[in-house]
Amino acid sequence: MPQRRGDVILFDRPPAVDAWAAVGGKKEGEGPLAAGFDLLFEDNRLGQPTWEKAESELQRQCMNQLLRRAGLAPDALSLVFGGDLQCQCTASHYAMRQLDVPFAGLYGACSTMAEGLALAACFAACGLADRAAALTSSHFCTAERQYRTPLTYGGKRTPTAQWTATAAGAVLLTPTGRGPQVGAVCFGRVRDFDVTDINNMGAAMAPAAAETLLRFFARSGRRPEDYDAIYTGDLGFVGSRLLLEILQAEGLPLQNHQDCGLLLYDRARQQVKAGGSGAGCSAAVLAAHILPGLAKGQLRRVLLLSTGALMSQTTFLQGESIPGIAHLVELLAPDVPV
Amino acid sequence: MPQRRGDVILFDRPPAVDAWAAVGGKKEGEGPLAAGFDLLFEDNRLGQPTWEKAESELQRQCMNQLLRRAGLAPDALSLVFGGDLQCQCTASHYAMRQLDVPFAGLYGACSTMAEGLALAACFAACGLADRAAALTSSHFCTAERQYRTPLTYGGKRTPTAQWTATAAGAVLLTPTGRGPQVGAVCFGRVRDFDVTDINNMGAAMAPAAAETLLRFFARSGRRPEDYDAIYTGDLGFVGSRLLLEILQAEGLPLQNHQDCGLLLYDRARQQVKAGGSGAGCSAAVLAAHILPGLAKGQLRRVLLLSTGALMSQTTFLQGESIPGIAHLVELLAPDVPV
Repeated sequence: MPQRRGDVILFDRPPAVDAWAAVGGKKEGEGPLAAGFDLLFEDNRLGQPTWEKAESELQRQCMNQLLRRAGLAPDALSLVFGGDLQCQCTASHYAMRQLDVPFAGLYGACSTMAEGLALAACFAACGLADRAAALTSSHFCTAERQYRTPLTYGGKRTPTAQWTATAAGAVLLTPTGRGPQVGAVCFGRVRDFDVTDINNMGAAMAPAAAETLLRFFARSGRRPEDYDAIYTGDLGFVGSRLLLEILQAEGLPLQNHQDCGLLLYDRARQQVKAGGSGAGCSAAVLAAHILPGLAKGQLRRVLLLSTGALMSQTTFLQGESIPGIAHLVELLAPDVPV
Repeated sequence: MPQRRGDVILFDRPPAVDAWAAVGGKKEGEGPLAAGFDLLFEDNRLGQPTWEKAESELQRQCMNQLLRRAGLAPDALSLVFGGDLQCQCTASHYAMRQLDVPFAGLYGACSTMAEGLALAACFAACGLADRAAALTSSHFCTAERQYRTPLTYGGKRTPTAQWTATAAGAVLLTPTGRGPQVGAVCFGRVRDFDVTDINNMGAAMAPAAAETLLRFFARSGRRPEDYDAIYTGDLGFVGSRLLLEILQAEGLPLQNHQDCGLLLYDRARQQVKAGGSGAGCSAAVLAAHILPGLAKGQLRRVLLLSTGALMSQTTFLQGESIPGIAHLVELLAPDVPV
C-alpha cells in the first residue's frame, strides 16, 4: 500500500520506469539535447498533409520507439495515459487509433507528462496495471495557429514568449524493475494569479509550480537539498525567475532549480525568446536527459514538475486570465533505497 | 489488491460511491428525470456573461451539491478527476480555480464520467485517495458553436443529430462505505469505423461501446443477464440500434440495454432528434437516476459505459473520420456481495 501524507503519495515499493523514448523535430535536433533523442525529423511535417496529422505521427513514432526499447508488442501494454495541446486532444486520439490498447485521455496542457507519469506510477504500484505508459506531444505549428496567430501571419514574438517544442515523449511504468524509480507523486492544484498575457505563459504557471513544491516539502519530509536537481516543466526564463522569487519569499530558496524549457534549446543561438514550452517539452527532456542521467547514476534524486497553462483561445478572447497547474513526480536512480 | 483479468480490473474490496449530485438546465428540468436532479436552472446562462462561464458555474454548483450531500468541506477531497468538451477543458479548469484541491484533468469527450469514475474508484480502492471525486459537464450552447455552427445561424438539425445536455454530474468515491459499490472497471480502446458525419455521433461511438462490452464479458466471467440494465452513455436512438446490431452479429444479444441519451429527454415531446449527448448526459443520468436506483435497491447490478466521440472542429474540417471510445464501470447495490 502506498503511504499518504497530505496530498503526497509515497511508494514503499516504488514502481520503475522500465523504458522511455523521445522524438523531436528540426529545432530540437539542433539543440543541446539532440544526442539524447531516439529519433529526430528534419521535416516537421513528417510526410503528413497537415500539422495536426504530423503531431499524431510524432506520437506514433514515439510509442514505436518506446515499445522497441522495451522489447514489447503493443498488446503488452495494460493502459496508456495520454493527451496533448490540440483542441479535444486529437493528436493523441488519432495516434491511439493505430494502437489497440486501453487508453485514458488526459488534459493537463504542458503538465501532461508529469500527470500521466504520476497516474501510470500509481497504477503500476498498486497492481492496477502490469505495464502502464504515459505519452504526450506538442507541435510548434499546431500550437501557434491554435493559441495565437496563423504561422503565415508572421507575427513578431515578444521577449516573454516561449517556443512550443515539436516533440513527443513516452515512458513505461512497471511494478518493479531495473530502471529509475518513482518515489513519490503529488497532483497539482489550479492556481490563477490574474496573468492575461498569452505571450507570457511562464508567469501564469510559476505560482502553480511554487504551490506544489511548497505543499510537497511541507508534507513529504523531503528537503530541497535532498535532490540533485528540481526540474520544472517549461517556465522558461521569465517563469523560472518568478518561481525562485516566490519560493525565496516563502522561505524556500532553491539552489538546484533547472527548467526543461531552458535545457531543450540554446536560447542565445536558437532564437526561442524565453525558452521552450509545450507538452512535448518536459516529456522530451525527461526521456532524452533526466531518465538517462538517473539510469547512469549521474543523477541520484530529482523532482520533475511539469507545468501547464490551462486557457483556451476562446477564454483568452473573452478576456479571462490564465490558470496554471503543476504536477510533481519524484524520480530516483535505480539503486537508491527508498 | 485488485484482480486483473485481461483489461478488466475487479475489486475484491469494492470502493463505494459515497455521494453524488446532478445539476441541469431548462430542458433537463422539463425531461422525465427532472425529479432526480439536485438543482435545475431555468436560465441556461446561470447569470454569467458567456456560455463558457455558465458551464463552469454548472460544475461549481454541482460540486457544491456533492460536498453538501457528503457533509464535507472541499479540503476533505484527496483528488478530483474532471474534464469537459470545451477546447482545453476550460469549463473544468475555471471551475477548479475556486476549489483548492488536487486536480487531474481528463479528456474523454462524452466518456469523461465513466473514465473519471473508473479512475476515482481505482484510487479509492488502492489507498491512493481517501475521497476521490469525478466531475464533468456539458452545455448545449458551448458545444453547438464549438463543434457545429453558431446558435444564431439557426441551422436545421438532422434526424441523426443529438442534443448536447446542459448538465453536470459529480460522484465521490471512498474506500468503503454504505453507498453503491464499484465492482469492476474496464478502460476503453479507441475505435474508428470511418464515420465522418458530425451530426451522427451515435454511429461513430457504437463500435467502441460494442468492443468494450465484448472485451469485458470475454474476460470478467460476467454475462449480460447478470445485470438489471446495461447503460450506454449517449448513443441515442441511432447509435443504440447500431450497438445492438453489432452485438447480435457477435453472438451477444442484449435484452437489457438502456441509453442515457434516451433516458434524459422525452424524444417525442422535447424535439431532441436522436436523443441526448454531451459529457453531462451520462454524468447526470448516473447521478439523477442510476445511483439513486442502486441506493434504493430498485437496481441490483448494472453496467455504465459512457461513450465519447474524439474529433475536434479542426479534424472535422480536415475531413478526418470520428474515433470513439467507451469506458465501463460495474455498479452494485450496497448490499450485493462481490
